[in-house]
Amino acid sequence: MSNGAPVFVLVKPQLGENIGKAARAMLNFGFSEMRIVDPRDGWPNPSAGPTAAGADIVLEKAQVFETTAEAVADCSHVYATTVRKRGMTKEVLAPAAAAEDMHSANGKCAILFGPERSGLEVMDVELARKIITVPINPDFGSLNLAQAVILVAYELSKIDERNVQPTLEKQPSKPALQIELDRLYAHMEGALEKTGYFYPPDRAAATKITLRNMLTKPGWTEEEVKTWRGVLSSFENPHPK
Amino acid sequence: MSNGAPVFVLVKPQLGENIGKAARAMLNFGFSEMRIVDPRDGWPNPSAGPTAAGADIVLEKAQVFETTAEAVADCSHVYATTVRKRGMTKEVLAPAAAAEDMHSANGKCAILFGPERSGLEVMDVELARKIITVPINPDFGSLNLAQAVILVAYELSKIDERNVQPTLEKQPSKPALQIELDRLYAHMEGALEKTGYFYPPDRAAATKITLRNMLTKPGWTEEEVKTWRGVLSSFENPHPK
Repeated sequence: MSNGAPVFVLVKPQLGENIGKAARAMLNFGFSEMRIVDPRDGWPNPSAGPTAAGADIVLEKAQVFETTAEAVADCSHVYATTVRKRGMTKEVLAPAAAAEDMHSANGKCAILFGPERSGLEVMDVELARKIITVPINPDFGSLNLAQAVILVAYELSKIDERNVQPTLEKQPSKPALQIELDRLYAHMEGALEKTGYFYPPDRAAATKITLRNMLTKPGWTEEEVKTWRGVLSSFENPHPK
Repeated sequence: MSNGAPVFVLVKPQLGENIGKAARAMLNFGFSEMRIVDPRDGWPNPSAGPTAAGADIVLEKAQVFETTAEAVADCSHVYATTVRKRGMTKEVLAPAAAAEDMHSANGKCAILFGPERSGLEVMDVELARKIITVPINPDFGSLNLAQAVILVAYELSKIDERNVQPTLEKQPSKPALQIELDRLYAHMEGALEKTGYFYPPDRAAATKITLRNMLTKPGWTEEEVKTWRGVLSSFENPHPK
């Protein structure tokens, strides 16, 4: 992000448990700045800690505001999450598109999440530049606060990952070279010749092609090819104990 | 999906509440086929209903199995979700890539989710073709069961939404079912036992895991599995000509 990570703003949250869960969801994806607007049960709320599951740092640093306007006063781009569009004239984005949008925004971003039961009020949505809506099952649609938070946090972190990724896809071991696969196949064919596998002779050629295709299909690692060679050797020269 | 929506498999879930939350997360994104392996507190579990928040249909239809192998026996592509990679040789996918992968898969897909506290055991991961790992904050990392479920369900539904995928070119042959792979592996292990391959005994367990991983990796077709079985039979009962 060009101006720090976005702020997650919980507007009039009801249950402390849900604030804790939202903190956990945020920190899972590396976000820690939470702001809370007019929490129903006051703040700090002893019910929040246990569900935060170790994300207490987020709760400790959380700032409390009386109004949504104050909570986002220092932000340049405000996004409002709503479960369903309600004839809004503002641009509506899915979480992935919103994450892209925030990533390229110049200035601090805030994301508003409404109270559990009712969602954001019109007054709050008005503050926002854009709307974030998670496309959910129209026949069910029961996304809770922490779930909305985690989906947005997840999409935001995916964008960050793309820039800093390389560790994830690293394979632990090297892929086998083609020549090793050739030798593996030759070994297999030789071992099978001795068992009479390629009988009758008029079908041998087709069978060999099938086998070779099977052995080259999987993308074995060097280690795996060695293991296969060991398997074949064991069939060729059994030493029952 | 070319063969129906994927199955969500909860392996040894502990709390009924979490099973309910997982059901809600699934149905939010339109998925309803849940399978439960050896739930700690039995099934049905009265604690699941309230947290399902109306997704009772998912719980009512949920099937219970004693083992993971039985739960996925009729599936062709099994994915294991893990929080962190543990030196796996299998392909590791982020949820978005896994969703793409499942969408283009030919055959029924299953996604395994481990118990709340410990995650999937090695035995369960072995059954899987590929690993799904949500890239989370390495300094925190506290994703719960329902959160893992919702992220995967969300990514899967994004693909459906896009709905661009033209009909895939038909695969020439059907992918092997998990139960056929299990039988192939059992055959291989049995045949190798007789050759003394698993000597010394203290290394046998690790070797068996390696072999099983190798055999589940490639995504064999039914025909290829038959060919493997023929290869093994030929080694077991050679008839040199």
